[in-house]
Amino acid sequence: MYKINIVCTGSLKEQYFKEAQEEYLKRLSRFCDVKVTEFGETRLSSSPSTSEIATALDKEYDIISSHLKGKVFVLSLEGKQYDSEAFCKKLFDSFSMSDTITFVIGSSYGLSQKLKGKYDNICFSKMTFPHHLVRIFLEEQIYRSFTIKNNISYHK
Amino acid sequence: MYKINIVCTGSLKEQYFKEAQEEYLKRLSRFCDVKVTEFGETRLSSSPSTSEIATALDKEYDIISSHLKGKVFVLSLEGKQYDSEAFCKKLFDSFSMSDTITFVIGSSYGLSQKLKGKYDNICFSKMTFPHHLVRIFLEEQIYRSFTIKNNISYHK
Repeated sequence: MYKINIVCTGSLKEQYFKEAQEEYLKRLSRFCDVKVTEFGETRLSSSPSTSEIATALDKEYDIISSHLKGKVFVLSLEGKQYDSEAFCKKLFDSFSMSDTITFVIGSSYGLSQKLKGKYDNICFSKMTFPHHLVRIFLEEQIYRSFTIKNNISYHK
Repeated sequence: MYKINIVCTGSLKEQYFKEAQEEYLKRLSRFCDVKVTEFGETRLSSSPSTSEIATALDKEYDIISSHLKGKVFVLSLEGKQYDSEAFCKKLFDSFSMSDTITFVIGSSYGLSQKLKGKYDNICFSKMTFPHHLVRIFLEEQIYRSFTIKNNISYHK
């Protein structure tokens, strides 16, 4: 069975995001094992300096690194953009080499350069969205990939 | 007061999308009047031909056209991509010329070429998402624009 790890910041606060995630994870359970690992966001002051942010991201890098398995993708604004068909292809090309794929979603301040430099970067949108909403984008798009791969009718 | 029209297909079915929309519309009410106009999606067979789709989109074009006011943007995969800062600038540049802005979100089959040819096209993501989820992207991003414009602290 395909295994997908989603490594992301904090637990979903909004009830509507919790329920959206629940729905997509339920749909995905037909196709793969999904594990969502939530790591705690490093607390920062309301106006942190660049070096305070960098230190926090380095600390998060260590935590995130301990959860990485198989092929790793990080979601970042600088990443490569894929349409849904190409993302599906990328996903299953990766599964042909590893039965586990890990996606990492950063916090409000993003992800450390060390992490971004080490793994494939994917950009879902040039726009900035709340990271909890990005988690829903990712789960929906993984589900869409399985429907494309299995030729299952789904919203176009 | 700024006025925003969102013209889109059908009513939100999923409770979690309804609640997410409610939250963003509540937040937006501080800054602008938002009107969401939902038009009925033309019914098509499960495997419609290209010409059946074109006919349906032309029919939807007539309905959509009757709801357009002020400056119009259509959301399409072929549209221009903006980051959040640039989208904010585009929004307020448009408000400087018109107190009303209309955004159009198509159905599963997209929007007619006539409509896309006539107005500015914006692309939120190269990936295809359910149009109900795209509505949440749009509402979140409009809210984000107001926080950027008003220098209000919000998720980065």
